[in-house]
Parts: sequence; structure tokens; C-alpha cells
Amino acid sequence: MTRLGPGRWRGAVSDRWSIGPYPNGGYVLLIGLAAIREEVPHPDPFTVTAHYLSPPAHAPIDVDVEVLRSGRAHSTAMARMLQDGKERVRILANYGDHSRSAGPTILQAEPPPMPPPEQILTAPHAVPMPNGLVAAIRDRIEWRAAPGTAGWLHGERTGRAEIGGWVRFVDGRPPDTHALPLVADVLPPAIFDVTASGWVPTLELTVHVRARPAPGWLRCWFRTRFLIGGYLEEDGEVWDERGQLVAISRQLARLNPPPGESGREQSTA
Amino acid sequence: MTRLGPGRWRGAVSDRWSIGPYPNGGYVLLIGLAAIREEVPHPDPFTVTAHYLSPPAHAPIDVDVEVLRSGRAHSTAMARMLQDGKERVRILANYGDHSRSAGPTILQAEPPPMPPPEQILTAPHAVPMPNGLVAAIRDRIEWRAAPGTAGWLHGERTGRAEIGGWVRFVDGRPPDTHALPLVADVLPPAIFDVTASGWVPTLELTVHVRARPAPGWLRCWFRTRFLIGGYLEEDGEVWDERGQLVAISRQLARLNPPPGESGREQSTA
Repeated sequence: MTRLGPGRWRGAVSDRWSIGPYPNGGYVLLIGLAAIREEVPHPDPFTVTAHYLSPPAHAPIDVDVEVLRSGRAHSTAMARMLQDGKERVRILANYGDHSRSAGPTILQAEPPPMPPPEQILTAPHAVPMPNGLVAAIRDRIEWRAAPGTAGWLHGERTGRAEIGGWVRFVDGRPPDTHALPLVADVLPPAIFDVTASGWVPTLELTVHVRARPAPGWLRCWFRTRFLIGGYLEEDGEVWDERGQLVAISRQLARLNPPPGESGREQSTA
Repeated sequence: MTRLGPGRWRGAVSDRWSIGPYPNGGYVLLIGLAAIREEVPHPDPFTVTAHYLSPPAHAPIDVDVEVLRSGRAHSTAMARMLQDGKERVRILANYGDHSRSAGPTILQAEPPPMPPPEQILTAPHAVPMPNGLVAAIRDRIEWRAAPGTAGWLHGERTGRAEIGGWVRFVDGRPPDTHALPLVADVLPPAIFDVTASGWVPTLELTVHVRARPAPGWLRCWFRTRFLIGGYLEEDGEVWDERGQLVAISRQLARLNPPPGESGREQSTA
């Protein structure tokens, strides 16, 4: 990240975090947040929303940050991400300090059940994605798939739009609050276990970062309940290795039919 | 809504949609969307995110709209909402046309169970909110509370952070896609059935509008699973009278303790 001027930064979109030709949306968001974190006085993202406007190229990218408000407990900032003057992503983010959250904690949900990571095989790299794309990002992220999800890895869809498992960075770096928006978009779409699909482009991704993660594996679960007229939400939970919820996510995406199919099937389960 | 110039509109924040002195966040968002809909070529909000920066006054409010992208299927816009030059709300919105969504529909969830509205009494207006505030908005919205939720209405918390029921506008206007972001923020906080609380200010609200609602009642359900360090999410579903999911929502809010309490209790259920 290079500073170009007041509120203006330059990063680069690598080809190592892509699915086919498309950089992962969570990865691109992370580049935008790397600029925002330099401009706000608080250390942790609390809620971030990215609207994806046009597919980024593997090339340098400029990030223009506007700080909207900076108070005692929170700052709010907006960022534009641009390549050759063309806007790729627009971000709104609220930052705070998770080490200073002092209010009550009451949980009414449990971590998603799955065996410990050492009892699960890494999801095989050799299996192509259902849309036939090669995912470079799978060399960056180790994923141990929760049993009963990602049936397509073994050639048989489960029929349930859920995908989960343990996730960590291949290079061994411990997760921090900025890694969580990336992790929230890092597994293949949950809908792959339900229906044939080509590309599932994200229109908007929102991640609530709720706590600083402990070092180690992240326990992840993503689910789509409503595919309506070709649009779907994907809801995610990310828990850390000690069993603390650290992020929840939701994205709105479009299900593009596989090449040659009209995508006009209609069914209700 | 009055047009002041290119991309610039003026509306007014009424005192009829408030909780105590605070205008409802969904209502204020609706004013911003009323300006955005004038500036984009597509008729329906698909996903909208509002960051609340400072509490709006009951007074005129200016809305500056920037259209970021306008394509065949979608437009994306940003809006600033200002009173006396002070920013109140920043909005990002993706618009489209729900009458043209032609892809597959697969549902993996059912509408929340509740008796039909005619078998439920309207939630009594006379009962004060748990924080003691008088909610003018309750004169605008008819709410028939789902049994087993909103125990505090009868003086006994259920212990489950869920609230639901049938909702419609008192003036009889049928819901449309712009009404849904308001409805997603219109019931009292689900957390009121779990813990003492003062004010629960919204930091950020995101609503996915998934279909055009049929005329009649809206079947609503809101749930908080994770109150962590005084911050909570509230997830919502809105279904129409014919049983179609029409919107899902999520907000990040802060639980402010009641006056005189430190809010440092710590428990896990």
C-alpha cells in the first residue's frame, strides 16, 4: 500500500486470489480496508459493506478514502476503488476498537458442529469447481470441508445449500479482524450443492466483525436459504478455534446459469 | 420530496415515525431512498445499506445522490443525508427490476409459523416500551405480535431474543418494495425479551429486497443471536400475505444500558 496523497492510496490486485479470471471479492475488499485503516483512528472493522461495480483486473488499484465521521468509539469511512479511472468497488465501513467493548455478552446460538480439523482431510485441490473454473485462491487457503457439505467435491450434490469447514491461511499467518471479511467470501458458493450454476457474481457483501480472532483455525459455515428469480443471499458465520463467534456475513449474488442453459427451471424445496 | 438541483433533493423528517425523540432508522432510510429512486432508471431497491452517523432532527433534510453505475440490469447509487450541513446518514443502494428477474427459484426455508392475523390481538398501544420511551411510530404501524414473542408486553421476558408478528400500515396503504426497508426496522428490538436495555441505536442497517410484496399483511420475524461486548446483530425476514419471502434484513446495533446500570453483566445461554 503506497500513499499517493491525502486520503489516496495505491495497492495491487494480485492474480493469486482469483477464481478463474476474477479476483475474489473478499480479497479486493481487503485491499480497500487496508487503505481505510490508515485513515481512521480506530483499529478494527465493525461493519463493512462493499458494492461490486465492475470486475477488477490483475493490476494496480487506487483507493480514495473519505472519513465521514470520527468519534470517541467509532469512525465511519467510505472508499472508492479505481483502475484507470473506472470504479470497481465502493465501500462503506464502520471502525471501532474491539479491545474496548465492555457491554454484556449473551449468546443464543452454538458454533456449527463439525469434527476437529485434524480429523478432516483437506478438500482436494484437484477437483474442479462445478463451474469448471480453476481457483488460484485454493493455493492460499487451506480448507477442511465439514462432512455433509460440498458433496459436489465427490461428484454428488447434497441438495442442501450449505458449505462449511475449518479454514486457515496456507502461509501460516494468524487471522486478524481485517482477515475476516476475506474469509467470509473464501469458500465456494453454498448453492453449488443444489443446482447447476456458472458464475455467481457478488453484487454486495456485508461483514460484521464481532471480535478479534484467536490464532489458529477458523470454523466457518455458509448457507443460502432463498434463491429467488436467480438472485440469492449467502449468510455466513465465522468462529475462532476457541469457540468464539468472530464474524457474520451476508452477500447478495446472482446465479448465472451454466453456458448453454437458460436457467428458467422453477422449483421449491 | 423537492428537487433542489442535479442529484439534490429535500425531504422532511416528521415526528410521527419516532421512538421517543429519535426518528426510526428505517423511516429515515426511506426518505433517502425516495431521492435515489428519482435518480436511477430501475424501479426496485435490491440491496440497501445505511450507516447512521448522527441522530436526525424533526426538520427538513437534504439528500445528495451520486449514481455510481447504471447498467442494463442494475444501478448503484450513494446518498448523503444532511441537516444544516451535518451528515446524518450515508446510504449505498443497488437498484434493479424485480418484474424482470427470470432465473430459478429454490427455497430452503419456511415462513415463520404464527396464527393468521385475525386470530391475534393488536399489540397493546398502552404498554410502554421496556426503555420507557413513547413510540409515535406505533400509531403508524399496526402490529399483531406472534405468540411467544414480546413477552415484555405482558410484563414477562421470554428469554429468547426473537420478535415477530403481522405488520401493516395503519393508513391502509399497500406495501411496496420501498416500504420494506422501513418494515425491517419497525418492531421493537428483539433483545428486549432477554435483557434490560436503554436505547439500542443502529450503527448500520442492510436490507435485501427480494420480491414485490402482495397487498395485505406482512409476516415478520426478527432475531438476535449474538450480543457480544454490548453490540448485537438483528436479523429479519419479511414475508407477504401470500407466503412469499420479500425481504431479509440485518443490522448492527449497540445495546446501551438502562440509566443507572453499568451494563457489565456477563452471561452465556
